[in-house]
Amino acid sequence: MSDIFKSHLEKFIKIKEDDFQEIMQYFRTINVKKKENLMIEGDICRSHYFVLSGCLRKFFVNEKGNEQTTEFAIENWWLTDNLAYEHQLPTQFYIQAVEKSEILTITQDAQRELLEKFPQLERYFRFIYQRAFAAAKMRVKYLFSYSKEEFYHNLVENYPEFVQRIPQYLIASYLGFSPEYLSEIRARKKSQ
Amino acid sequence: MSDIFKSHLEKFIKIKEDDFQEIMQYFRTINVKKKENLMIEGDICRSHYFVLSGCLRKFFVNEKGNEQTTEFAIENWWLTDNLAYEHQLPTQFYIQAVEKSEILTITQDAQRELLEKFPQLERYFRFIYQRAFAAAKMRVKYLFSYSKEEFYHNLVENYPEFVQRIPQYLIASYLGFSPEYLSEIRARKKSQ
Repeated sequence: MSDIFKSHLEKFIKIKEDDFQEIMQYFRTINVKKKENLMIEGDICRSHYFVLSGCLRKFFVNEKGNEQTTEFAIENWWLTDNLAYEHQLPTQFYIQAVEKSEILTITQDAQRELLEKFPQLERYFRFIYQRAFAAAKMRVKYLFSYSKEEFYHNLVENYPEFVQRIPQYLIASYLGFSPEYLSEIRARKKSQ
Repeated sequence: MSDIFKSHLEKFIKIKEDDFQEIMQYFRTINVKKKENLMIEGDICRSHYFVLSGCLRKFFVNEKGNEQTTEFAIENWWLTDNLAYEHQLPTQFYIQAVEKSEILTITQDAQRELLEKFPQLERYFRFIYQRAFAAAKMRVKYLFSYSKEEFYHNLVENYPEFVQRIPQYLIASYLGFSPEYLSEIRARKKSQ
């Protein structure tokens, strides 16, 4: 499975096979079952997760006791609570497997040492954060621009595979409405 | 003014004076008046802006014709439309000076060359994007967690200087409600 991570790194930087083998020493590979939690609210956020296969989601439990999903991560995406990870604070989020997944994990200490030992990875992580930041900014624009219903149609149009793959109640949790309301929207669309 | 940028860089990386002088060649310093636009909707997003003094904001014009502010940048912050900047696309945003400001600008080509010439700056930009990403993620959580009114009180409590400095109608534009509604909330708070 480490081949997946290597091909991913090579999209951004050149890396020698010996270096790659050493880099992998900083990571641990774990297998998680569907619905298994990697992190729960109140935990110190110690790890950064890279999805080799499967899918993770990040959510928090809102005042009404509902799970509000804020992010998904499929193959080749990183996921953590970035603020809590950087400062090693308790997190307000959960990270849970949506599907059976294989995950690379690295601790914050290990990631810092890794970057000191292999400064060429600064470029890699600069790209990763740069793109993730740009995506997060567009999410904020969408939250202000679209109604929840428009947001759903936008998702179906631009990310059909994503909508196929993720269970409907989690799509609803990501969009911030109830599964019942999502069923209504879908029924309305079909009848159009 | 370049001393400001140097002190800022030195919070993240070590830099020799000769290198710094050469690095500055990649930037241009510009002075903008209050309300002057640095970028308007439809422009190819060519520049990344670093605030030496003053304040910028980024906004888009929504369907109702209102300006929805999505970000502010004060001293030592970067601002651009990151997605459009990376891919050199037309932007959907405006970037405008909130106050008379002094700004460092760099083009995407120049930033790429700069990073190739001075790879130690990868570390600096990795930190910048990492923190900006973490902040953007918290913004998304707040947008789901708080009512507009709670969001305002949160802002007053955690960023009192910011609320003092930014004109009220722009605070309203950032929170996504009308200046009239903001006046109501403030009146209600005073009478409590």
